[in-house]
Amino acid sequence: MMTKTLSVCVVGGTGAEGSGLAMRWARAGHRVTIGSRDPAKAEAAAAELNQKLGKPLICGAASSDAVTGADVVVLTVPYAAQMPTAEGLKDVLDGKILIDVTVPLVPPKVSRVQLPPTDSCVVALQAALGEGVKVVSAFQNVSAHKLKDPDKVIDCDVLVAGDDKEARAVAIRLAGDAGLRGIDAGPLANSVVAEALTSVLIFINRTYKIPDAGIRITGLGETPAA
Amino acid sequence: MMTKTLSVCVVGGTGAEGSGLAMRWARAGHRVTIGSRDPAKAEAAAAELNQKLGKPLICGAASSDAVTGADVVVLTVPYAAQMPTAEGLKDVLDGKILIDVTVPLVPPKVSRVQLPPTDSCVVALQAALGEGVKVVSAFQNVSAHKLKDPDKVIDCDVLVAGDDKEARAVAIRLAGDAGLRGIDAGPLANSVVAEALTSVLIFINRTYKIPDAGIRITGLGETPAA
Repeated sequence: MMTKTLSVCVVGGTGAEGSGLAMRWARAGHRVTIGSRDPAKAEAAAAELNQKLGKPLICGAASSDAVTGADVVVLTVPYAAQMPTAEGLKDVLDGKILIDVTVPLVPPKVSRVQLPPTDSCVVALQAALGEGVKVVSAFQNVSAHKLKDPDKVIDCDVLVAGDDKEARAVAIRLAGDAGLRGIDAGPLANSVVAEALTSVLIFINRTYKIPDAGIRITGLGETPAA
Repeated sequence: MMTKTLSVCVVGGTGAEGSGLAMRWARAGHRVTIGSRDPAKAEAAAAELNQKLGKPLICGAASSDAVTGADVVVLTVPYAAQMPTAEGLKDVLDGKILIDVTVPLVPPKVSRVQLPPTDSCVVALQAALGEGVKVVSAFQNVSAHKLKDPDKVIDCDVLVAGDDKEARAVAIRLAGDAGLRGIDAGPLANSVVAEALTSVLIFINRTYKIPDAGIRITGLGETPAA
């Protein structure tokens, strides 16, 4: 599992975060499909990314078809779209790993942590989808605009939380393949740190007038991957 | 305010986290008092720290007396003692800055985030004490055993959250005076990140077999203070 090429479907891959991850994974050798409710939109997004990559590596398809053919599904949609999008794909998600990148930002105060009643919106997603889907939380704190440039070195770690250890390992591998350092952050309940941290990073960006605050875990005694 | 010597009372300064901070602040020139319900215990703790420091810099006193004479009060007690300790000092805390270091760990699963109903236990403290006390959240993620050695360089930032900007600035200054880099993390609601992060760091310590995982905020474009 850990060395083979993966089929990765990015649902929400037409946005900045999803398209950046899609390009990085395609360059790392994975088969990447952009999924969108509108297949024409997905194909257009894939064509645009392929132009940036200079090679036809990424496909676009209707989300349900893209998910069906994938080993790993990555959800990169706005908070308001997270639950309806995932519930609409529940049947085809069964048995798969779903990496949820959703941050529960509540506009307009996006620099203030405002957790949902379940604390973690990814925990809520796991509850809605049931145990048949292995939900993992990751990538909430990575700057979308740095991801978009596939050559950009990103000074940020990826906290990976989930109740299935093998699924966490897949997400950690995909973080590495995107040029990031994935760190095992434990059970899905621990996802709340990454989900809440994005608001703190937005606050820090505004307060210190910097574009892309991120985090590094220290004490691991190794050079962070980049 | 920002350049003068501060009178700092550490309530819970007989513990590892509190005593490490007390020593570092005393060495930085602040007047530091250890507060404990039992004044004899506070005096004994102060004597022990003074021996380590090689100078009689720190005093011990009953918490209520120590708080009365302080500009800034720092609460470093276990979660279960946080609310009763602070409520017992409510009258003398009025008008002061209270830096709360409490982490809402729920044994035995301390590596799993288990937030209280209010999400942040520091937000709950502010609500209990009322607006007369300027509550700031800080220092939750700093290794107590590294703090204890006042010469140890600590590779960890301090997220400082609070609803009063000047009070946050005092905590950021005290982080710097303890050899750490304090970072303005915004309103008190944002404290939940630091409170939850400690469980994630405990998980990382166990999983990667390291003693002291910490965090750094990246993107600030300056060498972290140490």
